[in-house]
Amino acid sequence: MTRKSQPQRSRSYDSEEHERGACEWCEYALVITLATILLIGVSALTIFWTFFYREGYGWADDIPEKQFNLHPTLMIAGFITFSGFSVLLYRICRCFRRIYVKLLHAIFHALAFPCIVIGFLAVLDFHNKKGINNFYSLHSWIGFVAMGLFGLQYAVGFFSFLLLLICNKGTANFRASLVPIHAAFGVLTFVLGVCACLTGLTEKALFTLGADRYSGLPDEGVIINAIGVAIIAILAVVMYILSRNKFRADARDMRASVDL
Amino acid sequence: MTRKSQPQRSRSYDSEEHERGACEWCEYALVITLATILLIGVSALTIFWTFFYREGYGWADDIPEKQFNLHPTLMIAGFITFSGFSVLLYRICRCFRRIYVKLLHAIFHALAFPCIVIGFLAVLDFHNKKGINNFYSLHSWIGFVAMGLFGLQYAVGFFSFLLLLICNKGTANFRASLVPIHAAFGVLTFVLGVCACLTGLTEKALFTLGADRYSGLPDEGVIINAIGVAIIAILAVVMYILSRNKFRADARDMRASVDL
Ligand code: HEM
Ligand code: HEM
Repeated sequence: MTRKSQPQRSRSYDSEEHERGACEWCEYALVITLATILLIGVSALTIFWTFFYREGYGWADDIPEKQFNLHPTLMIAGFITFSGFSVLLYRICRCFRRIYVKLLHAIFHALAFPCIVIGFLAVLDFHNKKGINNFYSLHSWIGFVAMGLFGLQYAVGFFSFLLLLICNKGTANFRASLVPIHAAFGVLTFVLGVCACLTGLTEKALFTLGADRYSGLPDEGVIINAIGVAIIAILAVVMYILSRNKFRADARDMRASVDL
Repeated sequence: MTRKSQPQRSRSYDSEEHERGACEWCEYALVITLATILLIGVSALTIFWTFFYREGYGWADDIPEKQFNLHPTLMIAGFITFSGFSVLLYRICRCFRRIYVKLLHAIFHALAFPCIVIGFLAVLDFHNKKGINNFYSLHSWIGFVAMGLFGLQYAVGFFSFLLLLICNKGTANFRASLVPIHAAFGVLTFVLGVCACLTGLTEKALFTLGADRYSGLPDEGVIINAIGVAIIAILAVVMYILSRNKFRADARDMRASVDL
């Protein structure tokens, strides 16, 4: 009796999962659409802001401010748009084969990497040209930690991907033990990227508008605040998706993650 | 045979849990100590900053800046120190009875509440006295959302606590269904509080030091940045503790949480 009731219970559990599954796909489609709009929108809004109010981009130009403009655009593209897509894809593409999901994850981070490097060099070179000190602000300290963590995460991911190619079976346990660490640090890196963007936007608003004009909330102030609000919305969506996945499929994830 | 091996397996699982338990207690003690130092330290540092560089506190005074000083102090106390302790306690006190943990959780949030209200009124009144517009900055928008979420969370927690007192058994399922929502929104509220503090510190540094003096990194600039770094460290510790608990005891938590 007891043994007979066991498979039945597990079957009803399965069907419960399927029911939840249907509802979940609907919810996922909505969340993915929202996330896509926000992730592309925030970069589009930053580019619009730069061209409409900040005279566009440039490098070895006579206007160093044009070179600075690469900094917010590329940092938001790297830390928010590309990293955001990369995290979402990893969590959402459950029907693909695991290896393709990893490839997509790697490709998006490979796109984020040069953005962050050039974005950093742009502001460093801008400071040196204008004779401004480096790394004085809270923003730059947060940014430094965020970039350091990003680099570490990139190295760990790259290394474990190499191990996967060299010896899939033999390194599975070791790679699996990296998963929770990589995931936890990934979320921290993302949140620090968000903090860096928000403090950076605040600085830029006060530098270029000044306290007096900013407090009158001119059009440009609204645009800068809107970029910040979009980043906050992305943070909320990403955290929502991560928490849903953890609540729902923790055990399954831990098993599946053996092939990191 | 099969039925006999079952309890054995569960026993070996138990002992594995005990082994992990010993190592975990050690880790927990370390993390709790670190968290306590940081949570008390960040408020202490803010108070030190106010007295040493910003002339202390005041209200219906001839120096409105003294009234403003209540804002960062009380906001950091409410959103970081008290809320941080409240979240940590809820996650860490596994040996107490559940009801006591909830009481402690409620007490810490009850301490945070007046801090946040008075901290908000301080800056609102300061703005009105000086004739500065309200709610123009990205910081104030983030702060507004953070305070709104805090109020909502407080209301939901209070309501479900009342339900617990009125009818413990009958409302258990309903209250249990609130737990994941309350937890996810709680983390979001905390992260938004962190973002508000970091943007606020950036604003304050540029308002009072000005871009020129801040970029020379005077002592006060280092203190302001250090407050920000301490808040980032608290964020990292809190996220670490939350992720550990989720990785480890998700299923047990979900069952235990029925008595929210
Ligand atoms: C995750 C994203 C970001 C990171 C990691 C980051 C990192 C940095 C770093 C390391 C510096 C210091 C460079 C130096 O001292 O030579 C800096 C400067 C600066 N950043 Fe960002 N940044 C990010 C996003 C943004 C955004 C979105 C803005 C918005 C406009 C911005 C505005 C500024 C400004 C105005 C400076 C010069 C003033 C200062 O050094 O604080 N940043 N950033
Ligand atoms: C979670 C914490 C915080 C919240 C929710 C918060 C919320 C707010 C809100 C709603 C305002 C707008 C008041 C108005 O317009 O009348 C404001 C203003 C201000 N806050 Fe905060 N704040 C927080 C922490 C801080 C911290 C730590 C500082 C650091 C010194 C700070 C500095 C300022 C400054 C300088 C203003 C005036 C300029 C402005 O409106 O942006 N805040 N805050």
